Order: sequence, then C-alpha cells, then structure tokens
Amino acid sequence: MYTEASLIKKLIRIFNTNRDDIVVGVGDDAAVLRWMKDRYLLATCDSQVEGVHFKKNKIKPETLVQRAVTASLSDIAAMGGTPSYILISLCFPKTTSSRFISSLVNGFDKTAKQYGVSIVGGNISSATCIMIDIFAMGFVKPDEVLLRSGAKPGDMVLVTGNLGGGRFRKPTARIAEGQIIAKSHLATTMIDISDGLSSDLLRICDASDVGVRLFANQLPIANTSSYDSALNSGEDYELCFTIGPKYAEKISAKIRRKTGTKVTIIGEILRKGEGRFLIDEKGQERRLEARGWDHFGPVIPTKSR
Amino acid sequence: MYTEASLIKKLIRIFNTNRDDIVVGVGDDAAVLRWMKDRYLLATCDSQVEGVHFKKNKIKPETLVQRAVTASLSDIAAMGGTPSYILISLCFPKTTSSRFISSLVNGFDKTAKQYGVSIVGGNISSATCIMIDIFAMGFVKPDEVLLRSGAKPGDMVLVTGNLGGGRFRKPTARIAEGQIIAKSHLATTMIDISDGLSSDLLRICDASDVGVRLFANQLPIANTSSYDSALNSGEDYELCFTIGPKYAEKISAKIRRKTGTKVTIIGEILRKGEGRFLIDEKGQERRLEARGWDHFGPVIPTKSR
Repeated sequence: MYTEASLIKKLIRIFNTNRDDIVVGVGDDAAVLRWMKDRYLLATCDSQVEGVHFKKNKIKPETLVQRAVTASLSDIAAMGGTPSYILISLCFPKTTSSRFISSLVNGFDKTAKQYGVSIVGGNISSATCIMIDIFAMGFVKPDEVLLRSGAKPGDMVLVTGNLGGGRFRKPTARIAEGQIIAKSHLATTMIDISDGLSSDLLRICDASDVGVRLFANQLPIANTSSYDSALNSGEDYELCFTIGPKYAEKISAKIRRKTGTKVTIIGEILRKGEGRFLIDEKGQERRLEARGWDHFGPVIPTKSR
Repeated sequence: MYTEASLIKKLIRIFNTNRDDIVVGVGDDAAVLRWMKDRYLLATCDSQVEGVHFKKNKIKPETLVQRAVTASLSDIAAMGGTPSYILISLCFPKTTSSRFISSLVNGFDKTAKQYGVSIVGGNISSATCIMIDIFAMGFVKPDEVLLRSGAKPGDMVLVTGNLGGGRFRKPTARIAEGQIIAKSHLATTMIDISDGLSSDLLRICDASDVGVRLFANQLPIANTSSYDSALNSGEDYELCFTIGPKYAEKISAKIRRKTGTKVTIIGEILRKGEGRFLIDEKGQERRLEARGWDHFGPVIPTKSR
C-alpha cells in the first residue's frame, strides 16, 4: 500500500516534465510558472474533507471555510508570494441545509476579503460528504521565490508563531511574514507547516540534501498544546525557514516589529552525512522522524485528526 | 433549498468584484485573467465524485481520469483557449487498492500527454469516497476569447459532434474545434455542454439576454442515445456556439475539414421578447426548459446519473 509520502514521491517522478515555463512543478508548496519577466505565477490546491479534516457537528461553517482557504493561501505564503485569486470546488450532500450553505458562502466572501483575494470561479457538486477544495493563485518576484531546496549546512532553522495549536483555532496564513522573509533575499528555503514540523522540516532536508539538528527545548509550544503536538501535529500553517546564522536574529526582529509575530530559532542545518537529529527535552540526541500527518501512513496514536 | 442554478446565481452576485485584472470572474466556463498584453490566463475546475458522477465498480480508472480531465479542459476549450497546466486534487478511501491508485496515476500521465498539458501540482487526501478535482489553466488571445454573452438575434446556434452519448464513452474536450471557432473572430458566444444542451444553451440566452428557437429534428443524436438524452443529458463535452447566419455553413465546413468533427446548425437566436422555444419532433412549438443536470435540483426521471 502507498503512504502519502511514497505516493507523492511517485507523482514527482512521473508527472514532472521539462518545460521552460515550469520553474517548479509537483513537489513544492506551489507550482511556479513563468511567462512574465517581472513575476512568477504560483498555483496550488488543498482540500478539507468531512470525517478526515473535520466533523460537521463540531465545526462552524465559518471556521471550516477559514481553514480551507488558509490551507491553500499558506502554500502561496510559503513561496514568499502574494495570493491573488481562488477558485472553490464545493461538494456537499443534498440534505445539507440552506442555512449551512449560506454560512459557507458568506464565510468565503468574508475570508477572501480578509486575505485580499478574489473568488474568480469554482464548481458545485453533490456528494456523500462535505468537501472543499481551494485552488489558489498568486504572484512572486523571480528573485524572491523560496523553495524547499537551497538550505546550506550552518543555516539556522526558524519558525513563526507557536506550534501544536492548529487544531484548536482558526489558523491564519502567514502571508506578510512570508513576504518579509522572501524580500530579505537572505533566507535559503521556506515551507509551511501543514502536516507537522517533523515531517515538513524533513521535506526541506530531502529537497536540499542536508541534515538537521532540532532542539526540542526551543520549540515555541502553543498554550493548549504539548511538546509532541508541537513537533508532529498538522494544520498550524506557521512558516518554517532556513537562513544563514548571522541573519537569523535580525530577520526575527524585523518580522516581530512589522507583523507582531514572534519568530524562534529551533535548529540548525547539518551536512547530509551528519544526519537528522532531535535533541529531546532531556538533552538526549534522537533520530528525527517524520511523525506528522500522512493520510495513508501508519496511524500515529498521539494524533486524533 | 438551493438548486445548483439558484446557488450559482447567488455566488455570481456575492463573489464577483471589480478588478481590472479580472476580465471574467464567476459565471462563465472559466475565469479570464489579464496581466499580459498578448494573452489572457484561463482558470477553471471541475470534479468527479463517486456515487454522483460514477460508480467505482462500473468504471475503469483510466476512463474515470479521462472524464475528470476532459471536464475541466472542456471549459478551457469553451473559451477558445489552449490548456496548458493542471493540478489534481485526489481523495480516496484508505482501503483503495494500490493497483487502482497506480492505474489512476498512469491514467493522469497518459491523458495529460494526449492533451499536451503538464501536471504541475495537486493534493492528496483520504476520504470516504473517491473524488477527483481537476484545476486547469490555459491561455487565449484577448481578441479570441469567447464568453456566454454576446449572442445576437439572427445568429445561428451550432453544436459540434453528437449529443446524448456522453455517459457511455470516453469523452474528449473539443480543443482544436474551439480554437478554430475562436480564431474565426466570427462566433459571438460559446459554451461546452457539460450539464445538457437545454440547460447550457439557456445559459447563453441568460448571459446574452436573448431568446432562442431550437429545432429538435436537427439535433445530432448519438447512436446509443435518444432525442431526450440529446437534449437534456450531460457530460457530452461538445461545444455549442452562436454565429451570424452567413458564416454558419462556412465555419462548419472548416471545422469538418480541419478536425473531422461534424458541426450541426440546431437553432437560431431570437430577441429576448420573442421567447425561448423548442420545435419538437412533431413540429409543435414548446417552451424550452432547462432540464439538464442540476446537482440539487428536481430529479429528472430520464436521467440516471
């Protein structure tokens, strides 16, 4: 059987083609497409599925919409981009109340306005469960785009905000923060934490062909969360990025000053041969494993999504 | 309760905003976005949901993929455009066999190559049923884009291929045909028949603020189909377009010559005040009603989708 990780590896191998206009295809937070000199188009999609990402009787329609839109816009933020348009694919059972649907529609309108994006299209279908797919497009300057590849041994690993609280709140895509990081021209990689820090940081390591040392005691843990959730739980939509050691403090201060969002140094990039480590709460060195969310991977007991 | 039609009307009213870069937002086959002088970007999405659009044990994975991709690319064709990229949102139950998934993946690769598009991204999620959402992007020259609005009284109504056979075959998006129609600079509107000729033609009438007279005896009915299916059943993905009467024969001949696809004159555009009519098989004039597929509308007994 496939895990999500193994299936994605297969898709990267099969689907990616050599085309001058495709700067980045399958395998990063968003596709990067080039036809204009002064900017790249970014395109991505993400879905919220009833029974997988949420339970209908435990979520407000407005919160569901906020999460769905945030998940896709966070991918644009993780490239250093500015989101501009979304298309909405909305599936729901015929028995869904008009009131619920109206709340979804109003939620989309409100959330789009909050993020400054326009809803330009979509599709509606009946289904046996609620499913929202958001397709987002945005822009980034060619010299500002940040990928998962490019981290260098010696770089610091930083993260915005707090980790582990994603499931309990309305998350926000860190768009302004991502742009500050991108416009610094100093960061070497960036990713959004959608599946869990451990999994997403290891994606940077894979793409950059490097190792890492992560310090458990430095993780910014959300009030409502635990150390394990901060390390492995998804839907935080914080940004994780790497940057040369002499710039780490400076960019953290700048982001804090301009957005109010704190940024924490949580680790350092190693050479690939040095390995991938977690220094745990007790100071013990352990192997860093991808224990974040995998839709088809082994069930992680500490996760209840 | 909402019907699909009434919900879409609401979305058009709420979501569309005034922005210079949005030529067409919600309400046509694809969004039309402008940042380049020489071409518009087209963006659209469409979904295939298990139990609604298909039954898993009655469809080959390759056919399912072909339908899913065709549905979205057909929207690009209906604008006169050339599709270029797709993103795939793929949801399926954890119990889905690796073999089925591999067939889907290979089907995507094959279908994308057939259409000359690249798969540049997507998303994977578990779900209680199989769901495929295809986001498609393409291009069209600004002076070639064809909308649903613009039909003039006196225009002829034409349709490519045969109608009513969609559910029984692997449909094809009429991309080359759409481009010939667009490049003629003579057609006034175009739409693809995804929900059924009656519903889709009336969308042209709504957007163009005109009436129509449709001739039942002129409908090109697929071998396997009936008159009623040709008029009302969806997933044909043929193109329906309007054009001045003196150009109708000429463009039909050109499309036939260049693509092998036949084109049939099936009706004429009237002034709005004249009404919307169907001249039925017996020569009786009846009111033309939107009896195509509506996900949340009244169940049409003749449809078994």
